[in-house]
Amino acid sequence: MPPASTSPSGASGVFIAFEGGDGAGKSTQIERLAAWLREGGHEVVVTREPGGTPVGQQIRELVLHGDHLAPRAEALLFAADRAQHVTTVVRPALERGAVVLQDRYLDSSVAYQGAGRDLDAQEVQRLSLWATEDLRPTLTVLLDVTPEVGRARRGDVHDRLESEGDDFHERVRRHFLELAEAEAHRYLVVDAALPAAEVAQIVKGCVGDLVGESA
Amino acid sequence: MPPASTSPSGASGVFIAFEGGDGAGKSTQIERLAAWLREGGHEVVVTREPGGTPVGQQIRELVLHGDHLAPRAEALLFAADRAQHVTTVVRPALERGAVVLQDRYLDSSVAYQGAGRDLDAQEVQRLSLWATEDLRPTLTVLLDVTPEVGRARRGDVHDRLESEGDDFHERVRRHFLELAEAEAHRYLVVDAALPAAEVAQIVKGCVGDLVGESA
Repeated sequence: MPPASTSPSGASGVFIAFEGGDGAGKSTQIERLAAWLREGGHEVVVTREPGGTPVGQQIRELVLHGDHLAPRAEALLFAADRAQHVTTVVRPALERGAVVLQDRYLDSSVAYQGAGRDLDAQEVQRLSLWATEDLRPTLTVLLDVTPEVGRARRGDVHDRLESEGDDFHERVRRHFLELAEAEAHRYLVVDAALPAAEVAQIVKGCVGDLVGESA
Repeated sequence: MPPASTSPSGASGVFIAFEGGDGAGKSTQIERLAAWLREGGHEVVVTREPGGTPVGQQIRELVLHGDHLAPRAEALLFAADRAQHVTTVVRPALERGAVVLQDRYLDSSVAYQGAGRDLDAQEVQRLSLWATEDLRPTLTVLLDVTPEVGRARRGDVHDRLESEGDDFHERVRRHFLELAEAEAHRYLVVDAALPAAEVAQIVKGCVGDLVGESA
């Protein structure tokens, strides 16, 4: 693996990825953080994968609702979505100096495909890094959620991955935690079972240091 | 690169890829060869990339008619199409002992994306080999066509790649020829400007040796 870079070359913005199982509360936390940063006068771009571009929305439909997709085809479709998204949305925003808050990035691919889908996690990561020309987040916020809490929060099942059993979601969770342990200096791991306001305060404290705001 | 294998592991079929620029006459030659092999009692599967599966048809639409597709996104979409196609169509056919005649495979990705689209040809090839778990054709028939002949035969322009200029098509052609030179024992290169019946006879002569038929 190439050495981690905390800032993409030529970019002055801050790239924050939110990761975690379904039901971890990523959307809520991203909304809260975005509102707070905007109050502070920052340009904030809120985006997501899969599906953060017009092409990506079509890819997302193929992946989430496609039947009988071969594991490598699925991984390559996610990587294609990512390549398009990073090239046309994320890099231009970072070059303008914006704060990019992204719902799912590299770690979700490694955790879901590598752990749950019988592909080698390192190969999945290499694929993503090729797709993005090695763009890594400045900070990854991992909202750590147990399968039980995630299930209770999800309510109705929306797609193929969400409908997997607790075993699957526990494997995904372990992979997220391993990725965070391996590069602890670029991760903030928060217990997603805490009240949303408390999680938001912890996130603000960490992001505030990065962008020069006090929480 | 891993060593070339003339037969995919566990498979008893024969995998023949047809490559060459637009207007080289691949469809015509595949039809003629398929008819001849079927007369000889062989199971023949005629297929193509991109678009040889239901998912692949949707990917093909995205790639051929999608605007502003990032080069890496395009390469990854072609590779996803290939992964799905090889897993669900080509390998099962080879395992049944069929002869698979395929319109475009690995070399088209390398030639069109590597040469024409500013990606590294070796990286594009690595991506394809990952997608297919290293499945290489038993024989690749390269129908070598000059840009002038290709243009005259294509008639109306159908998609974004076909509408490129002669310079582009000449670069693609050079890449096809280089791939054939590098592994000459697995290639049959035929001058596509010859009359179709003559090309068909040359192809039959070579394929006949592989499948135990005399042309």
